[in-house]
Amino acid sequence: MAARGKGGVAPRLFLRVELGGDDRIGPGKVALLEAVEREQSISAAARAMGMSYRRAWLLIDTMNRMFREPVVRAHPGRATGRSAEVTPSGARLCAAYRAAEMRTQKASKALVDEIVAALKPGYRPPASRKRSAS
Amino acid sequence: MAARGKGGVAPRLFLRVELGGDDRIGPGKVALLEAVEREQSISAAARAMGMSYRRAWLLIDTMNRMFREPVVRAHPGRATGRSAEVTPSGARLCAAYRAAEMRTQKASKALVDEIVAALKPGYRPPASRKRSAS
Repeated sequence: MAARGKGGVAPRLFLRVELGGDDRIGPGKVALLEAVEREQSISAAARAMGMSYRRAWLLIDTMNRMFREPVVRAHPGRATGRSAEVTPSGARLCAAYRAAEMRTQKASKALVDEIVAALKPGYRPPASRKRSAS
Repeated sequence: MAARGKGGVAPRLFLRVELGGDDRIGPGKVALLEAVEREQSISAAARAMGMSYRRAWLLIDTMNRMFREPVVRAHPGRATGRSAEVTPSGARLCAAYRAAEMRTQKASKALVDEIVAALKPGYRPPASRKRSAS
């Protein structure tokens, strides 16, 4: 979610629903589900996202333990390339997240505009890092 | 931002505007500014938020380096209790963030409803931790 502002600054919004501990749905888990949908394999999805298989598996397991129906179903017997599939319940979760993200972008426009307008002249954002403070 | 769902589950929304690296405005920095506003002191605000003075100072410094006008002005000569103040620019940032957060809650209602409806019967969220994956 990015909207280009003055001087080429393109703030991005980050939206997450938190239930407690690791039980949270945000852009990381949703992008992983979308990658599994594309790749039909947890290991290929993990590779595509630059994360370890173990981490991908843990994120999926966290979701599968939260919900009545699993979000991903693994088929260990099958050949790589169709060894996992996103369930209808997982697909609904992704669609609901992306829709909320779109609406949040509109809901946060005034905030983003306020931030962009207040930036120093010639402001250049530093390179993004993963996981830090809010 | 919490809305109580079935079985007492109260998902919370997390909203952040990311520019790159530590240049991001989210609930942590906004709550710190609000604490400085209340306490009129960076060290008292840090204590109230359970963070080190150094961390509070770094978060404020990150914002002061991003924006044309500082969000907090320190008055090192003055007695504790009125040694720092949130500037009008910092107050506008907090107000814009809280307004966006309120609107995001509405914008994400369908997502939160989808998540709560899909939870296992008798679901209990684990205790929250700080800073982990999305």
